[in-house]
Amino acid sequence: METDEQQIEQLIADWRRRTEEGDVEGVLALMTDDVVFLTPGNPPMTKSDFAKNFQGFAGKVRVEAEQEVKDIYVSGDLAYTWSHISVAMTSPETGNRTERAGHVLTVFRKSPSGAWLLARDANLMVSGKPVPE
Amino acid sequence: METDEQQIEQLIADWRRRTEEGDVEGVLALMTDDVVFLTPGNPPMTKSDFAKNFQGFAGKVRVEAEQEVKDIYVSGDLAYTWSHISVAMTSPETGNRTERAGHVLTVFRKSPSGAWLLARDANLMVSGKPVPE
Repeated sequence: METDEQQIEQLIADWRRRTEEGDVEGVLALMTDDVVFLTPGNPPMTKSDFAKNFQGFAGKVRVEAEQEVKDIYVSGDLAYTWSHISVAMTSPETGNRTERAGHVLTVFRKSPSGAWLLARDANLMVSGKPVPE
Repeated sequence: METDEQQIEQLIADWRRRTEEGDVEGVLALMTDDVVFLTPGNPPMTKSDFAKNFQGFAGKVRVEAEQEVKDIYVSGDLAYTWSHISVAMTSPETGNRTERAGHVLTVFRKSPSGAWLLARDANLMVSGKPVPE
Protein backbone atom coordinates (compact mmCIF):
# COMPACT_ATOMS: atom_id res chain seq x y z
CA MET A 1 0.00 0.00 0.00
CA GLU A 2 1.57 3.28 -1.11
CA THR A 3 1.42 6.36 1.08
CA ASP A 4 -0.10 9.57 -0.32
CA GLU A 5 3.43 10.98 -0.62
CA GLN A 6 4.54 7.94 -2.66
CA GLN A 7 1.49 8.22 -4.93
CA ILE A 8 2.27 11.89 -5.60
CA GLU A 9 5.92 11.12 -6.32
CA GLN A 10 4.72 8.42 -8.73
CA LEU A 11 2.41 10.94 -10.45
CA ILE A 12 5.36 13.32 -10.89
CA ALA A 13 7.51 10.52 -12.36
CA ASP A 14 4.66 9.45 -14.69
CA TRP A 15 4.13 13.07 -15.78
CA ARG A 16 7.80 13.47 -16.70
CA ARG A 17 7.98 10.14 -18.56
CA ARG A 18 4.75 10.75 -20.51
CA THR A 19 5.95 14.27 -21.40
CA GLU A 20 9.22 12.87 -22.74
CA GLU A 21 7.22 10.29 -24.72
CA GLY A 22 4.87 12.97 -26.14
CA ASP A 23 1.86 11.14 -24.63
CA VAL A 24 -0.65 14.00 -24.39
CA GLU A 25 -3.64 11.87 -23.30
CA GLY A 26 -1.46 10.25 -20.64
CA VAL A 27 -0.45 13.63 -19.21
CA LEU A 28 -3.99 15.07 -19.36
CA ALA A 29 -5.18 12.08 -17.28
CA LEU A 30 -2.94 13.27 -14.41
CA MET A 31 -4.65 16.65 -13.93
CA THR A 32 -8.04 17.91 -12.72
CA ASP A 33 -10.50 19.30 -15.26
CA ASP A 34 -10.29 22.73 -13.61
CA VAL A 35 -6.47 22.74 -13.56
CA VAL A 36 -4.69 26.11 -13.83
CA PHE A 37 -1.07 26.58 -14.97
CA LEU A 38 0.62 29.86 -14.05
CA THR A 39 3.83 31.14 -15.67
CA PRO A 40 5.55 34.55 -15.47
CA GLY A 41 4.10 37.23 -17.74
CA ASN A 42 1.44 35.02 -19.30
CA PRO A 43 -2.28 34.58 -18.78
CA PRO A 44 -3.36 31.46 -16.83
CA MET A 45 -3.43 28.26 -18.91
CA THR A 46 -6.41 25.88 -18.77
CA LYS A 47 -6.44 22.15 -19.53
CA SER A 48 -7.28 22.75 -23.20
CA ASP A 49 -4.58 25.46 -23.46
CA PHE A 50 -2.13 22.92 -22.02
CA ALA A 51 -3.19 20.25 -24.55
CA LYS A 52 -2.80 22.67 -27.47
CA ASN A 53 0.63 23.77 -26.25
CA PHE A 54 1.75 20.17 -25.67
CA GLN A 55 0.66 19.09 -29.15
CA GLY A 56 2.71 21.97 -30.54
CA PHE A 57 5.98 20.33 -29.53
CA ALA A 58 5.11 16.63 -29.04
CA GLY A 59 6.95 14.51 -31.58
CA LYS A 60 8.80 17.54 -32.97
CA VAL A 61 11.45 17.95 -30.29
CA ARG A 62 13.26 15.65 -27.90
CA VAL A 63 12.32 16.59 -24.33
CA GLU A 64 14.62 15.80 -21.42
CA ALA A 65 13.41 16.78 -17.97
CA GLU A 66 14.91 16.54 -14.51
CA GLN A 67 12.91 17.26 -11.40
CA GLU A 68 14.05 17.31 -7.80
CA VAL A 69 11.22 17.31 -5.26
CA LYS A 70 12.41 19.42 -2.32
CA ASP A 71 9.30 19.37 -0.22
CA ILE A 72 6.04 17.42 -0.13
CA TYR A 73 3.16 17.89 2.33
CA VAL A 74 -0.24 16.22 2.49
CA SER A 75 -3.34 17.03 4.55
CA GLY A 76 -6.79 15.57 3.89
CA ASP A 77 -7.40 15.56 0.14
CA LEU A 78 -4.90 18.36 -0.54
CA ALA A 79 -1.13 18.31 -1.05
CA TYR A 80 1.64 20.51 -2.36
CA THR A 81 5.15 20.01 -3.63
CA TRP A 82 7.98 22.44 -4.11
CA SER A 83 10.48 21.25 -6.69
CA HIS A 84 13.27 22.36 -8.99
CA ILE A 85 12.95 21.47 -12.69
CA SER A 86 15.35 21.57 -15.62
CA VAL A 87 13.99 21.00 -19.13
CA ALA A 88 16.01 20.70 -22.33
CA MET A 89 14.31 20.59 -25.72
CA THR A 90 16.30 19.56 -28.78
CA SER A 91 15.17 19.61 -32.39
CA PRO A 92 16.37 16.42 -34.14
CA GLU A 93 16.29 18.30 -37.48
CA THR A 94 18.19 21.47 -36.65
CA GLY A 95 20.01 20.38 -33.49
CA ASN A 96 18.70 23.55 -31.84
CA ARG A 97 18.63 23.11 -28.09
CA THR A 98 16.83 25.28 -25.54
CA GLU A 99 17.23 24.90 -21.80
CA ARG A 100 15.05 26.25 -19.03
CA ALA A 101 15.24 25.79 -15.29
CA GLY A 102 13.55 27.03 -12.16
CA HIS A 103 11.36 26.33 -9.18
CA VAL A 104 7.80 25.03 -9.30
CA LEU A 105 5.07 25.13 -6.65
CA THR A 106 2.36 22.56 -7.36
CA VAL A 107 -0.96 21.77 -5.67
CA PHE A 108 -2.57 18.33 -5.91
CA ARG A 109 -6.11 17.23 -4.99
CA LYS A 110 -7.32 13.70 -4.29
CA SER A 111 -10.24 12.86 -6.55
CA PRO A 112 -13.34 11.03 -5.23
CA SER A 113 -11.91 7.85 -6.83
CA GLY A 114 -8.85 8.17 -4.58
CA ALA A 115 -6.40 9.18 -7.32
CA TRP A 116 -4.18 12.20 -6.77
CA LEU A 117 -4.37 14.78 -9.60
CA LEU A 118 -2.43 17.96 -10.33
CA ALA A 119 -4.74 20.97 -9.74
CA ARG A 120 -2.66 24.19 -9.65
CA ASP A 121 0.88 24.76 -10.88
CA ALA A 122 3.06 27.87 -10.66
CA ASN A 123 6.08 27.30 -12.89
CA LEU A 124 8.88 29.84 -12.48
CA MET A 125 11.24 28.36 -15.08
CA VAL A 126 13.26 30.92 -17.04
CA SER A 127 15.59 30.38 -19.95
CA GLY A 128 19.12 31.49 -20.50
CA LYS A 129 20.70 31.24 -17.09
CA PRO A 130 20.92 28.64 -14.37
CA VAL A 131 18.67 29.32 -11.38
CA PRO A 132 20.20 28.54 -7.98
CA GLU A 133 18.47 25.63 -6.27
CA MET B 1 -17.11 32.11 14.24
CA GLU B 2 -15.12 32.66 11.06
CA THR B 3 -14.70 29.86 8.55
CA ASP B 4 -11.18 28.79 7.50
CA GLU B 5 -11.72 30.57 4.20
CA GLN B 6 -12.65 33.81 6.00
CA GLN B 7 -9.60 33.53 8.27
CA ILE B 8 -7.32 33.13 5.24
CA GLU B 9 -8.93 36.10 3.47
CA GLN B 10 -8.39 38.11 6.66
CA LEU B 11 -4.71 37.04 6.72
CA ILE B 12 -4.31 38.24 3.13
CA ALA B 13 -5.95 41.60 3.97
CA ASP B 14 -3.76 41.96 7.08
CA TRP B 15 -0.65 41.11 5.04
CA ARG B 16 -1.43 43.80 2.48
CA ARG B 17 -2.23 46.46 5.09
CA ARG B 18 0.89 45.72 7.16
CA THR B 19 3.00 45.79 4.00
CA GLU B 20 1.62 49.20 3.08
CA GLU B 21 2.33 50.37 6.64
CA GLY B 22 5.91 49.01 6.55
CA ASP B 23 5.17 46.82 9.60
CA VAL B 24 7.82 44.11 9.17
CA GLU B 25 7.16 42.34 12.51
CA GLY B 26 3.45 42.31 11.72
CA VAL B 27 4.04 40.65 8.35
CA LEU B 28 6.58 38.13 9.72
CA ALA B 29 3.95 37.04 12.27
CA LEU B 30 1.72 35.88 9.37
CA MET B 31 4.17 33.26 8.00
CA THR B 32 5.61 29.93 9.15
CA ASP B 33 9.24 29.80 10.28
CA ASP B 34 10.07 27.47 7.35
CA VAL B 35 8.32 29.70 4.77
CA VAL B 36 9.71 29.71 1.22
CA PHE B 37 9.12 32.50 -1.34
CA LEU B 38 9.70 31.64 -4.99
CA THR B 39 10.11 34.25 -7.75
CA PRO B 40 11.21 33.86 -11.41
CA GLY B 41 14.97 33.66 -11.92
CA ASN B 42 15.90 34.02 -8.27
CA PRO B 43 16.97 31.59 -5.56
CA PRO B 44 14.30 30.71 -2.96
CA MET B 45 13.83 33.33 -0.22
CA THR B 46 13.66 32.33 3.45
CA LYS B 47 11.96 34.23 6.29
CA SER B 48 15.17 36.14 7.12
CA ASP B 49 15.72 36.94 3.41
CA PHE B 50 12.17 38.29 3.33
CA ALA B 51 12.76 40.45 6.42
CA LYS B 52 15.97 41.89 4.96
CA ASN B 53 14.26 42.65 1.63
CA PHE B 54 11.25 44.21 3.38
CA GLN B 55 13.43 46.47 5.53
CA GLY B 56 15.15 47.62 2.34
CA PHE B 57 12.02 49.43 1.14
CA ALA B 58 9.90 49.92 4.29
CA GLY B 59 9.50 53.61 5.07
CA LYS B 60 11.41 54.57 1.91
CA VAL B 61 8.69 54.09 -0.67
CA ARG B 62 4.90 54.26 -0.66
CA VAL B 63 3.48 50.81 -1.38
CA GLU B 64 0.03 50.36 -2.88
CA ALA B 65 -1.14 46.79 -3.42
CA GLU B 66 -4.28 45.30 -4.90
CA GLN B 67 -5.03 41.61 -4.66
CA GLU B 68 -7.92 39.68 -6.14
CA VAL B 69 -8.37 36.19 -4.70
CA LYS B 70 -9.60 34.02 -7.57
CA ASP B 71 -9.66 30.68 -5.84
CA ILE B 72 -9.42 29.40 -2.27
CA TYR B 73 -9.50 25.77 -1.15
CA VAL B 74 -9.07 24.24 2.31
CA SER B 75 -8.58 20.64 3.42
CA GLY B 76 -7.46 19.60 6.89
CA ASP B 77 -4.69 21.95 8.02
CA LEU B 78 -3.69 22.88 4.46
CA ALA B 79 -5.05 25.50 2.06
CA TYR B 80 -4.12 27.26 -1.13
CA THR B 81 -5.13 30.45 -2.88
CA TRP B 82 -4.65 31.57 -6.45
CA SER B 83 -4.73 35.32 -6.79
CA HIS B 84 -3.79 38.23 -9.03
CA ILE B 85 -1.70 41.02 -7.48
CA SER B 86 -0.75 44.52 -8.61
CA VAL B 87 1.86 46.44 -6.63
CA ALA B 88 2.93 50.05 -7.19
CA MET B 89 5.90 51.51 -5.32
CA THR B 90 6.43 55.27 -5.35
CA SER B 91 9.39 57.16 -3.96
CA PRO B 92 8.13 60.32 -2.15
CA GLU B 93 11.52 61.97 -2.79
CA THR B 94 12.00 61.33 -6.49
CA GLY B 95 8.42 60.56 -7.53
CA ASN B 96 9.78 57.44 -9.24
CA ARG B 97 7.03 54.86 -9.60
CA THR B 98 7.42 51.16 -10.42
CA GLU B 99 4.52 48.85 -11.12
CA ARG B 100 4.44 45.08 -11.12
CA ALA B 101 1.58 42.66 -11.62
CA GLY B 102 0.97 38.97 -11.97
CA HIS B 103 -0.46 35.79 -10.55
CA VAL B 104 0.45 34.24 -7.22
CA LEU B 105 -0.05 30.69 -5.95
CA THR B 106 0.12 30.54 -2.16
CA VAL B 107 0.00 27.63 0.31
CA PHE B 108 -1.15 28.12 3.92
CA ARG B 109 -0.83 25.78 6.90
CA LYS B 110 -2.84 25.87 10.12
CA SER B 111 -0.51 26.05 13.11
CA PRO B 112 -1.08 23.93 16.25
CA SER B 113 -2.54 27.08 17.89
CA GLY B 114 -5.22 27.17 15.18
CA ALA B 115 -3.89 30.22 13.32
CA TRP B 116 -3.46 30.04 9.55
CA LEU B 117 0.03 31.02 8.36
CA LEU B 118 1.54 31.51 4.90
CA ALA B 119 3.96 28.62 4.19
CA ARG B 120 4.86 28.63 0.47
CA ASP B 121 4.45 31.38 -2.11
CA ALA B 122 5.16 31.38 -5.84
CA ASN B 123 4.96 34.97 -7.03
CA LEU B 124 4.94 35.41 -10.82
CA MET B 125 4.75 39.21 -10.85
CA VAL B 126 6.68 40.89 -13.65
CA SER B 127 7.25 44.56 -14.29
CA GLY B 128 6.67 46.66 -17.35
CA LYS B 129 3.56 45.18 -18.86
CA PRO B 130 0.08 44.33 -17.66
CA VAL B 131 -0.51 40.60 -17.19
CA PRO B 132 -3.94 39.35 -18.28
CA GLU B 133 -6.02 38.14 -15.35
